Amino acid sequence: MDKTYRDILKWGDKREQKIDDATLKVIKEIFSLSDETIANKHLFGDTEVKLEKKISLSEKQINDLKELAGDENILTDDFSRANFSYGKYYSDLLFLRKGIIPTPPDVVIAPKSHNDVIKLLTYCNHNKIPIIPVGGQSSVTRGVETPQGGIALDLTKHLNQVLDVNEINMTANVQAGMFGPAFEEHLNKLGYSCGHFPQSFEYSTVGGWVAARGAGQASTGYGKIDDMIVALKVVTPAGVIENKEYPANAEAWDTYPLFVGSEGTLGVITEVIMKIRNFRPENTKYASFVFKSFEAATSAMRAIMQSGFGTPHLFRISDPEETDIAFKTKGFEEKFSNKVLKALGYLPGKRCLMFVSVEGDASYTKFVKKKIKKTAKKNTGFYIGSGPTKNWLEQRYSSAYMREPLMDIGIMTDTIETAVTWENLLSLHASVRAYVKKREKIVLMSHISHVYTNGANLYFTFLSPMEKGNEEDDYKQFHKGLVDTIHSNNGSLSHHHGIGRVMAPRMKGAVSEEVIKAMQAVKNHFDPNGIMNPGGMLGLG
Amino acid sequence: MDKTYRDILKWGDKREQKIDDATLKVIKEIFSLSDETIANKHLFGDTEVKLEKKISLSEKQINDLKELAGDENILTDDFSRANFSYGKYYSDLLFLRKGIIPTPPDVVIAPKSHNDVIKLLTYCNHNKIPIIPVGGQSSVTRGVETPQGGIALDLTKHLNQVLDVNEINMTANVQAGMFGPAFEEHLNKLGYSCGHFPQSFEYSTVGGWVAARGAGQASTGYGKIDDMIVALKVVTPAGVIENKEYPANAEAWDTYPLFVGSEGTLGVITEVIMKIRNFRPENTKYASFVFKSFEAATSAMRAIMQSGFGTPHLFRISDPEETDIAFKTKGFEEKFSNKVLKALGYLPGKRCLMFVSVEGDASYTKFVKKKIKKTAKKNTGFYIGSGPTKNWLEQRYSSAYMREPLMDIGIMTDTIETAVTWENLLSLHASVRAYVKKREKIVLMSHISHVYTNGANLYFTFLSPMEKGNEEDDYKQFHKGLVDTIHSNNGSLSHHHGIGRVMAPRMKGAVSEEVIKAMQAVKNHFDPNGIMNPGGMLGLG
Repeated sequence: MDKTYRDILKWGDKREQKIDDATLKVIKEIFSLSDETIANKHLFGDTEVKLEKKISLSEKQINDLKELAGDENILTDDFSRANFSYGKYYSDLLFLRKGIIPTPPDVVIAPKSHNDVIKLLTYCNHNKIPIIPVGGQSSVTRGVETPQGGIALDLTKHLNQVLDVNEINMTANVQAGMFGPAFEEHLNKLGYSCGHFPQSFEYSTVGGWVAARGAGQASTGYGKIDDMIVALKVVTPAGVIENKEYPANAEAWDTYPLFVGSEGTLGVITEVIMKIRNFRPENTKYASFVFKSFEAATSAMRAIMQSGFGTPHLFRISDPEETDIAFKTKGFEEKFSNKVLKALGYLPGKRCLMFVSVEGDASYTKFVKKKIKKTAKKNTGFYIGSGPTKNWLEQRYSSAYMREPLMDIGIMTDTIETAVTWENLLSLHASVRAYVKKREKIVLMSHISHVYTNGANLYFTFLSPMEKGNEEDDYKQFHKGLVDTIHSNNGSLSHHHGIGRVMAPRMKGAVSEEVIKAMQAVKNHFDPNGIMNPGGMLGLG
Repeated sequence: MDKTYRDILKWGDKREQKIDDATLKVIKEIFSLSDETIANKHLFGDTEVKLEKKISLSEKQINDLKELAGDENILTDDFSRANFSYGKYYSDLLFLRKGIIPTPPDVVIAPKSHNDVIKLLTYCNHNKIPIIPVGGQSSVTRGVETPQGGIALDLTKHLNQVLDVNEINMTANVQAGMFGPAFEEHLNKLGYSCGHFPQSFEYSTVGGWVAARGAGQASTGYGKIDDMIVALKVVTPAGVIENKEYPANAEAWDTYPLFVGSEGTLGVITEVIMKIRNFRPENTKYASFVFKSFEAATSAMRAIMQSGFGTPHLFRISDPEETDIAFKTKGFEEKFSNKVLKALGYLPGKRCLMFVSVEGDASYTKFVKKKIKKTAKKNTGFYIGSGPTKNWLEQRYSSAYMREPLMDIGIMTDTIETAVTWENLLSLHASVRAYVKKREKIVLMSHISHVYTNGANLYFTFLSPMEKGNEEDDYKQFHKGLVDTIHSNNGSLSHHHGIGRVMAPRMKGAVSEEVIKAMQAVKNHFDPNGIMNPGGMLGLG
């Protein structure tokens, strides 16, 4: 039984995750779920994969591609095609649970080399065959679908090596198909770290990080992937774009930023030269705080970023609802220390958790932590040790496995995130809460992470019982209002999830017509036949 | 007599600067200059400006433009046209000294508003009239010439205001024609600083900083102008490109970086939203060191940048020749402390000066200075107090006035700079020295400034007697070999001076054909009629 839709929809190593008892108790309570609802798995998706849609490439084309990439690097069976049909957006999972795959790729190809990618693109461009680089398929914005069939391009099989670590420049040249853990392990052995740890880290690729403009948990210290890139090698239908490795330059404008966030629509990223850091986990300092209000926590965060005494790496605030749920599910509510906190004025429904880590030189991390504690204190921040932050970090990757068991018991759950300036952050947060809470039974956990001097990323996680039988439409409508609310409150369409087909129709409202036209001109240059990740993507399709 | 070529060629406030006695003595000695040579000013340029080239726009066009921009905002007299014919490249000054202005602009226009810039571009695009935004005219790479005549666009007269300072986001919205000092003064009054201090600061504009991708003396801490920009407003022939103010985003790729380094070839930048910093000069710490060798100083610099304990803001090493000349011209050679230094093994011809400043929170600057001292010491760095760095900062802007008196006594003097990774820095430095020293009488002072984890900017200043009567060709040939040497040693064409017409013909060797084609596609989109700063610029002409 390894050929079911469930094998496709599950996250990561495909293990079946259980909801822990404390969390399940909270969820049952909030949503008044019966034992029966919990026992009867909703849309479990454990039926065998069978595709209706036949391969639309001709036999000659398939043979050409086999000759080009090698027989063993082309998959044409139903399960493989199905396996490369979706990313990890909430609706993707609904469709898979229902066994609906209207537009699988015709074939999955794992090119052997950069040169084979060039050959493939040349062939596809000539024959107008769509080609979609899928990275680790972890897109949560429908970035890697194949609405017009064609080739799902999988670099993880062969283009997955570190080509060079330059210890003088502290840079690494890595192939785009390498997954996070292998890259990090390679660097750790040499005493370095990549510094980029998105929640998808274990199952996302370096190329995907760049293509979707990701951000990792330490981004407040190291920046987004945008800031880590030194040089790219990209195969486009218009040729290979490769830039030289300079620490900075003024050779007119840079071309490579066009590919940062290009989401496979301009070409295939094959190599990335990235900055690396010293790997010194023994130096890292952790701090956790509780604040009396979201406003106070946000003020502290802004003050820390604008003070000029160095920055934390992990930097995160949970809003009151997220904080309350964390306290509840961790069993903290019943503890004596909670009584103390409440007596001191840190009240449920108002108080907020802050998590901090500082990396680097040993005396620097000590110094910055001390300064952060001082600034937090001035803003009602009560220091609660390093433990809660460390605990949060420990469950960070495994929490991605929670979505399946939640959906199994009929819970709609998804996240949405936006970049917003400090000036607009609190009002955006309040407006989103007001919108979301119009829905009868819903949990909305918000946090701030990825922090800058001029603003931050605001991240929302919501849980609500599905409208059974009308799951997609219900979700779609809810999601539309959510994006509308973010948009009208000066939030960006995305800070680090990318656009994908979910946000593509929104681009025309988010950026001006002139910007769209400029993007279209870039698209037309690199991909004149529209073979790269086609179909509405980026509003340019 | 305020209508001579000399009034145009002189720097800044047009004062006549004298070479101080100590420096003059050193120069006389090195180049064996006679008193007569020094007394007879070479190509002094004090003749009245008179243009041979007539205005090529029609009377109707001039009238249209007058109607559009206002009579009082259009200059058509010879002196004004001459005054907007060149930037501040060495050859520009030679031509002015000789009274040669083959291609002045037809008119100089100072638009009243962003909307007038739109109207002007629409008109020029329709009538195919070249338009060149000139900023502060401080380009040292021939970025602001008018080889096809047309309009020199001067934003400094009307578009020179701070529109908004957002103290919550710590950003400022400033018009592109504002000069550095006015901007900084405005911010200082509110307790902020712009953090961007190129040597041209007093006579360059915010728009010029962005268009030429400049870097200021504190760039090691604050980054280049590239890193300070939050949003731009740019008028192009294809419409206005204006992006929203987000702290970061993943709305596909960004469009505004295309204008960072565009040097007026894509459009006219009218507004810039920039990050600002707290203005706390009282917190700034200074440190100066002498190292036993350039290698040791460079090792210390790299270690400091890669250590993860915070970074300096000003960070600079002078190579042995620059250090020796600084010691000579400051009269340090004869001092007792020089004897001590030499006795300790810090020898002329080998030793190197390092200047450091750290800005920010008071305890942070103290902390980082301490760490820097420690790292310097490990690498032979001998601490010589904060004085030399402060002294250097004090003469920083006035040293720009030295070029005129040097050229007056027949000295060819110019600078060239490049971005290079650590791995290639020392060999590039050695190769440039080897090339330059083939010339019989020449002084070559090199320094490292603008420092990154993966490399730095290497900056060369050279002085050598002109080949009288053959000044331009001699310089041109010398310069060609210099750029060849930098190029073949893995240096970029520029780190912060931009490309201009000097480096434009080099672009095809510096970046690949595919990159040139992509740039051309961008150029064609924004400026289909080629009216923006035309004539070989960026190799796209």
